[in-house]
Amino acid sequence: MDSSDNELELSPEKRHQMVEEATKRIWDHLENLQDQPAADTENGAELAKQMQEPLPEEPTSFEELLDLLFGDAIPCSVNTAHPGYLAYIPGGGLFHSAVADLISNSVNRYVGAWLTAPALARIEANVIEWFCEIVDYPEEAFGLLTTGGSMANLVATITARRENLSEAFLDGVIYTSDQSHHSVAKAAVLAGFPAENVRSVPTNNEYQIRVDRLEEMIEEDRIGGKRPFLVVGSAGTTNTGAVDNLDALADLCDQEEMWLHADGAYGGFFTLTDKGRQQLSGIERCDSITLDPHKGLFLPYGTGALLVRNGQALARTHATDAEYIPDWDPDSEFVDFSHLSPELSRDFRGLRVWLPVKMHGIKPFRANLEEKLALARVATTEIKDIDHVRVVAEPQLSTLAFRIEPPGIEGTALNELNQELLTAINRRGRVHLSGTTLNDRFTIRISVLSFRTHKEHIIHCIEDLKESTKELLDKR
Amino acid sequence: MDSSDNELELSPEKRHQMVEEATKRIWDHLENLQDQPAADTENGAELAKQMQEPLPEEPTSFEELLDLLFGDAIPCSVNTAHPGYLAYIPGGGLFHSAVADLISNSVNRYVGAWLTAPALARIEANVIEWFCEIVDYPEEAFGLLTTGGSMANLVATITARRENLSEAFLDGVIYTSDQSHHSVAKAAVLAGFPAENVRSVPTNNEYQIRVDRLEEMIEEDRIGGKRPFLVVGSAGTTNTGAVDNLDALADLCDQEEMWLHADGAYGGFFTLTDKGRQQLSGIERCDSITLDPHKGLFLPYGTGALLVRNGQALARTHATDAEYIPDWDPDSEFVDFSHLSPELSRDFRGLRVWLPVKMHGIKPFRANLEEKLALARVATTEIKDIDHVRVVAEPQLSTLAFRIEPPGIEGTALNELNQELLTAINRRGRVHLSGTTLNDRFTIRISVLSFRTHKEHIIHCIEDLKESTKELLDKR
Repeated sequence: MDSSDNELELSPEKRHQMVEEATKRIWDHLENLQDQPAADTENGAELAKQMQEPLPEEPTSFEELLDLLFGDAIPCSVNTAHPGYLAYIPGGGLFHSAVADLISNSVNRYVGAWLTAPALARIEANVIEWFCEIVDYPEEAFGLLTTGGSMANLVATITARRENLSEAFLDGVIYTSDQSHHSVAKAAVLAGFPAENVRSVPTNNEYQIRVDRLEEMIEEDRIGGKRPFLVVGSAGTTNTGAVDNLDALADLCDQEEMWLHADGAYGGFFTLTDKGRQQLSGIERCDSITLDPHKGLFLPYGTGALLVRNGQALARTHATDAEYIPDWDPDSEFVDFSHLSPELSRDFRGLRVWLPVKMHGIKPFRANLEEKLALARVATTEIKDIDHVRVVAEPQLSTLAFRIEPPGIEGTALNELNQELLTAINRRGRVHLSGTTLNDRFTIRISVLSFRTHKEHIIHCIEDLKESTKELLDKR
Repeated sequence: MDSSDNELELSPEKRHQMVEEATKRIWDHLENLQDQPAADTENGAELAKQMQEPLPEEPTSFEELLDLLFGDAIPCSVNTAHPGYLAYIPGGGLFHSAVADLISNSVNRYVGAWLTAPALARIEANVIEWFCEIVDYPEEAFGLLTTGGSMANLVATITARRENLSEAFLDGVIYTSDQSHHSVAKAAVLAGFPAENVRSVPTNNEYQIRVDRLEEMIEEDRIGGKRPFLVVGSAGTTNTGAVDNLDALADLCDQEEMWLHADGAYGGFFTLTDKGRQQLSGIERCDSITLDPHKGLFLPYGTGALLVRNGQALARTHATDAEYIPDWDPDSEFVDFSHLSPELSRDFRGLRVWLPVKMHGIKPFRANLEEKLALARVATTEIKDIDHVRVVAEPQLSTLAFRIEPPGIEGTALNELNQELLTAINRRGRVHLSGTTLNDRFTIRISVLSFRTHKEHIIHCIEDLKESTKELLDKR
C-alpha cells in the first residue's frame, strides 16, 4: 500500500493552517456577535435539504467547508451565543472552554481511570469537589460530569432506585411538581418505571411544589400499596425559574425516608450568590443535585454535573467488574470516574470547567450571576410599567414570565395574541425570547443567564416589547 | 457594580493570545509524539495529590496553567495518542476533530432540535445516515451520537426493553457471551434488570458465542417462565477482537422474536473494509449496533454512536412532551435528536465526525483500517516465530492475544511470569500493551487501531517483546 493513500495525520503546516483559517472565521463571528440577528432560521428547511448527501468518497477543501459553515450553516440558526438570547435557559459559550477542548482533543488522554492519567483525572475530581463546596455538601459527597442536565437527572434517578428500592422496584413512585422539567419524567421511564408511577404534584401561585399536597399523595400511595421513594424538587424551573421549598422537602423526605433530588440545571449555581443561597436554602440537604455548568457557569453546551451527598452511592450504583479495568479502591483519594458513571471511554470534560475557573477565580462568575439576578428584577420593574402587560411570574432567580392582557380578549384568542407578540419581538432580531404555557395560558418568558447579557440588552428587550405591544394593540 | 468585576468575555487580543500560546504547546506535543514515552505515570500519585485544591477565588495566568498541563499533568499519563499505544482499544485523536470542536464551542449553537439550527442538525443527521450506509442498514434506520460505546449500549438496552417488553419487564432476560464488554451487563442493571437476568453464554475456542448453547439457554429460560428478549452479540470483543457469528444470531433472534444488538464499539467500522465486511456478515440484520467513531474512525475520545434498524424505535422509546419543546413530526426529513435520545442540551457532536470525513472522503479511513488488519497479521506471524511464546487468539480483526509459556511452569506462577513480561515490555516505553485473563490465564494483548500506528511501530513492538522475553527467560 502506498503510504500516502492512508495518511490522516496532518502535516505540521496543515495543522497550523487549519487553526489559522478556522480562528479567522471565529474571530469575525465573535467580534460581530452584537450586530448579528439573535435568530435567523427562515431558510433553514431549504438549506438543510440541500445539505443531505451520501457518504463522501472524495475530499473537500477545508476552506470550502468553512465557507459552508460560517457562510450558511451557522448563521442560519437561533444565535444561542448572542447577548440577546433570553429564550429557554441560555447557555453561554466561554471561549476558554473552546481552548480547553482544543487541548484535550489534541492530546487525547483517557481520564476515566486515574491510573491512565492521574493528574488529569485529578483536575476533573477538583472540579467535582469545587461544585460540592459551592452547594455546601459534606466531605463524603462526590459526583460526575455529564453532557447535560437530562443525563444527570437520569443517573440520579437510577442511583435513587438502586439505593432505595430492591430489584423488584416497579411499585416505586416518583414525585415532582407539575412545573418540573420533562427530563424528570423521561428519566423515570428510561430508568424502568411505568409512566403512571410519576406523580405530578400541583404547585402554588408561585409555581412551587405544594408540600401539603405532596404529603397527602405520598400517604395515599402508601395506603394503595405503592412505594414512594423519590422526590425531585426544582432548584429553578425552566418555565418560570421557580424554586421549590427545598428545606420543607428535605424535612418531609427525612421523615418518609425518601431520596430527595434537586434539579438545579438552571438554578443550582446561583448558590454562589447571597440571594441565590437564600432562595436555594436546603439544597445542601438534598441527596443529589443536578447542575449545568453549560448554563450557570456560562460554558459552551456539553457539560452537566450530578452531585451525590454520599458519593459512595454512585460507586454502588455502577458497581461492575471486568478483567481489563484496573482495580479501584473507593476509599482512595484517586478516582476512577468510569466506576461512578454509566460511561467508560468519553471526553475529558473536566478541563473545560477547570480552565476558566482557574484563569479567573470564582469571583467574576459570582459577580456575573449577581448581575443576572439584578437584570431580571430590572426587566420586571420595566414590564410592570407597560400598559396591558402583566407579569405572570416574578423572578425568583433570573427568569420571569409575562403576558399581554388587553381588555375584551381572553381564552384561545388571548393565547394567540401572546404568540403573535412573541413572534413580533423575535422578528426584530435584537433579542430572542421563548414562550410556555402556564395553566393553559400562553406566556412569554425572559431568562437572563448568558455572561454576554448586560443592561443594554435588557433595555433592547424592553424597548422591543413596548414597541411590539403598541403595534399589536394599534392594529386591533 | 463595576463592569470590569464580572468580565468573562475575553478581549479579541486575549483570545488570539490564548490560541497562540495553547497551539504552541500543542505543536510541540504532536511534533515530538514519536519521541515521548508510550506511558509515564510513575509520579502520578504524588502529582495528583499536590494538585488537589479548594475552589480558587483568585486568578492564575494562562501561561502558568499551560506549564502545569504540558509540563507535568499531560506527560504523566499513558500516552493514548502515541503510535505505540496498542493497549485496551486504542483511540486515535484526529486533529481535525479538535478544530471542529473549537468551532462548535466558539459558536455554541444548540443542535438537539432542528428548528434552532437546521443546517447543523442536518450535519449530525448526515453523519448518522453515513454510518447507516456503512453498515448497510435500510432506509428507515437511524440513530444518534453518544459520548462512547457504554452509553450507546445503555440506550440500546433501554430501547430493546421498551420495544420488546411490557412495563412489567423484570422477567426479561439478556444473553451475551462470556467475552462481551462489561458495559453490556452494566447497561442491563442500569436499565432496571436484576443482575441475574444477564446470561453469560460460553464461547468456543475462538472466543465466539456458542449459538448452540445460547439456543439451549433461551429454551431453558422459556421453560422456567422467563422472557428472553435481547441478545447482545460482539462485533469485536475487547479481550481478543472476537466477532460472534452475527448471521447465526440473527437467524436465532428472528425465530425467537428477540432483539439483536451488535456491540461494534471496537469492530463495527471494519465493515468499511472487504475483510471486515466478510467477518461482520450479518451486522446489517441486527436491530441495533453500537459504533465508536473515537475508535474505528480515529477521533479523539468522546464520540460513540447507536444505530437502530428501525429508527422509529428510538422516537417511541424516548417519547415525552413538554411545553417548551418545539413539536416534532417523526416523518419529517428533519430531526430533533432530543426526541431520540436521553439528552436535551449537549454538545454538537456531529461536526467532529463530519469535518475529517468531508476533508478526506472515506477512502483513507478505509485504507487505514485495512492497514491495521494487515499489521495485526504481521504481528501474529512474527510472534509465532518467538520461542516459548504462543498466540492464544489469532486476529479476527486487528487484535490478538499471546502469552509466554516456557516449559516447567504453569498456573499462578505462569500468570505472574506473563504479568512480568507485560511490565517489562511497557517499561521500554516504545509501545504500551495491556493484559487480560482468558480462562484463568493471564494473557497479553496487542490491539492495532490508532491511525498513527504503522509498520515501524509493530516492529518496535516485536523487538521489545523478543528482548523482554529473552531477558526474562535468561534470568530464570
